[in-house]
Amino acid sequence: MVSVDSPFLRACRGEPHTQVPVWFMRQAGRSLPEYRAIRGTGSITEAIRDPELATEITLQPVRRYGTDAAILYSDIVTPLEAIGFGVEVKPGVGPVVERPFESAADLDRIVPLDPEGHTPFVLETVRNLVAELGDVPLIGFAGAPFTVASYMIEGGPSRTYVKTKKLMYSQPDLFATLLDRLADLALASLHSQVANGASAIQLFDSWAGALSPSDYRHYVLPASQKVFAGIAPTGVPRIHFGVITGELLPLMREAGADVVGVDWRVDLDDARARLGDDVALQGNLDPTAVLAGADVAVERTRDVLRRAGGHPGHIFNLGHGVMPESDPDVLKRVIDTVHAEGRVR
Amino acid sequence: MVSVDSPFLRACRGEPHTQVPVWFMRQAGRSLPEYRAIRGTGSITEAIRDPELATEITLQPVRRYGTDAAILYSDIVTPLEAIGFGVEVKPGVGPVVERPFESAADLDRIVPLDPEGHTPFVLETVRNLVAELGDVPLIGFAGAPFTVASYMIEGGPSRTYVKTKKLMYSQPDLFATLLDRLADLALASLHSQVANGASAIQLFDSWAGALSPSDYRHYVLPASQKVFAGIAPTGVPRIHFGVITGELLPLMREAGADVVGVDWRVDLDDARARLGDDVALQGNLDPTAVLAGADVAVERTRDVLRRAGGHPGHIFNLGHGVMPESDPDVLKRVIDTVHAEGRVR
Repeated sequence: MVSVDSPFLRACRGEPHTQVPVWFMRQAGRSLPEYRAIRGTGSITEAIRDPELATEITLQPVRRYGTDAAILYSDIVTPLEAIGFGVEVKPGVGPVVERPFESAADLDRIVPLDPEGHTPFVLETVRNLVAELGDVPLIGFAGAPFTVASYMIEGGPSRTYVKTKKLMYSQPDLFATLLDRLADLALASLHSQVANGASAIQLFDSWAGALSPSDYRHYVLPASQKVFAGIAPTGVPRIHFGVITGELLPLMREAGADVVGVDWRVDLDDARARLGDDVALQGNLDPTAVLAGADVAVERTRDVLRRAGGHPGHIFNLGHGVMPESDPDVLKRVIDTVHAEGRVR
Repeated sequence: MVSVDSPFLRACRGEPHTQVPVWFMRQAGRSLPEYRAIRGTGSITEAIRDPELATEITLQPVRRYGTDAAILYSDIVTPLEAIGFGVEVKPGVGPVVERPFESAADLDRIVPLDPEGHTPFVLETVRNLVAELGDVPLIGFAGAPFTVASYMIEGGPSRTYVKTKKLMYSQPDLFATLLDRLADLALASLHSQVANGASAIQLFDSWAGALSPSDYRHYVLPASQKVFAGIAPTGVPRIHFGVITGELLPLMREAGADVVGVDWRVDLDDARARLGDDVALQGNLDPTAVLAGADVAVERTRDVLRRAGGHPGHIFNLGHGVMPESDPDVLKRVIDTVHAEGRVR
């Protein structure tokens, strides 16, 4: 059982604690030699469906780095794949959808998620992890309705989200129904992760930054609010993250997040000024700084800590996921710097 | 000779006028059937080097739409290509550099631009256009030092700018020297365009939004300031644009812009609140709205006009370039809406 006194959980709640907690998005994965050694040649989907393997992959960075939280090895499209929508995570590409979402008829393909029936492997992994992690909290996660919808509509990753926005603008009712269904999908998955022992959840709205604030408010906010409100009764901290969200930060807070993830484009003191003291912030070292070597990475880590200003509601992280080319030794130096020099006022 | 009373030039200066001016980034190009008809099978570089063809391509959207400004058909890497750095604009890809910039030795490959010697075709096109355009102002342009550097260092378009940032962080002096050289390159090109009749200039820092404000200020601002300060004595309005620049807008203004381009992610009234009344704004209809049909595009055009609030310093534009799939008839409806309904207070 995870102590509620863990620095990570206390920081999520903005409660007093003594050590700035740190974890990295994509801390498990391609940047680690032990990951490449264990993953073998199977697909990402196969690895996620193998609880023993997924457990080990999740634990690797916790062991190597001493991170203050673990994040489940899974994917934001895992529930969608599990209900049979026809999506595959292709290496080096991302989620690819066989038959993209085009019209109201496709709504029937989004059946309600039965976590025990559709994703027993996720729940077994969560239970394994909770048993193994001891005092280190496990973060469960889901894809936010907009971001999952963008994959479903585009058929894969996109730079412009043309099809998604076209549907959003020209068939707003259908779009709202789709996002509402995806809110239910995310909620069912998150509830099952928490019920099996996850101590916090993160909702990834990775691509919401493609929208203006007024579009986000109108088309996206209601579905994300449904997810956060639905998970609220569990009492676990709720983190929200996307990239290019400088303009959206107040709305992502309004969606119901206890912790707002900040990408590296917004200086953390600016984000704090914009959001006020009554919320926790997560971030935000530029992931590319890690590639410039330990000296640069450490110096810039100190800058993030300085801008965080010792606010108890700060969880150190990168401003996006770990880049595959990252040197684990440099990441270790970043973590050690946060632990040695981070001060909570 | 262009009258200084043109709505576009008056709006750039925030002076009283009666009609909200409008033009579109990438208004010339693939979305127009007459462009596809005339371009033939040659490369983009060949078209740029053919003054008769480049003149015609520049004029096509002015004729079809009645835009309030023309923008030279060229590319931000044209000066770099002309001095022999070895760059080619590949269709559907963008600028590709044969031997990327890697070290101080590569500085020697950036020779000073002699506009008459290296880019006589550009200047002939500018002169042709000024003769043809009558009262419609011609906008000249250049790539901003950071964005041009990113192509040189990455070797082509990038999503993460890993190599660029790695060089920037780990060899800041070399990076500063590179950007200073590219400021000179941009300046020489812009001066020659203005000397031959361009009535305004736009500096494209398309990818500066990959940087945090503090990084932008430290690594990028000095070189962009050099460009804007250098062109100031000509007296032509100076426009600055990039995408994902919500956090950078005040700094882009500080760089010396008279007009700050705003991408669609920032609602225009927010941009105005952030920048104050003493600057012109250009933007910012989401280019994907055009793909959702005329009704959606017109409705959203009205929203942009409403948010612009009748400020005399507003030039209507898209929030990024015209998408190739855009229907010219919808774009025409957007322009007609701006002209019919735009009010300057």
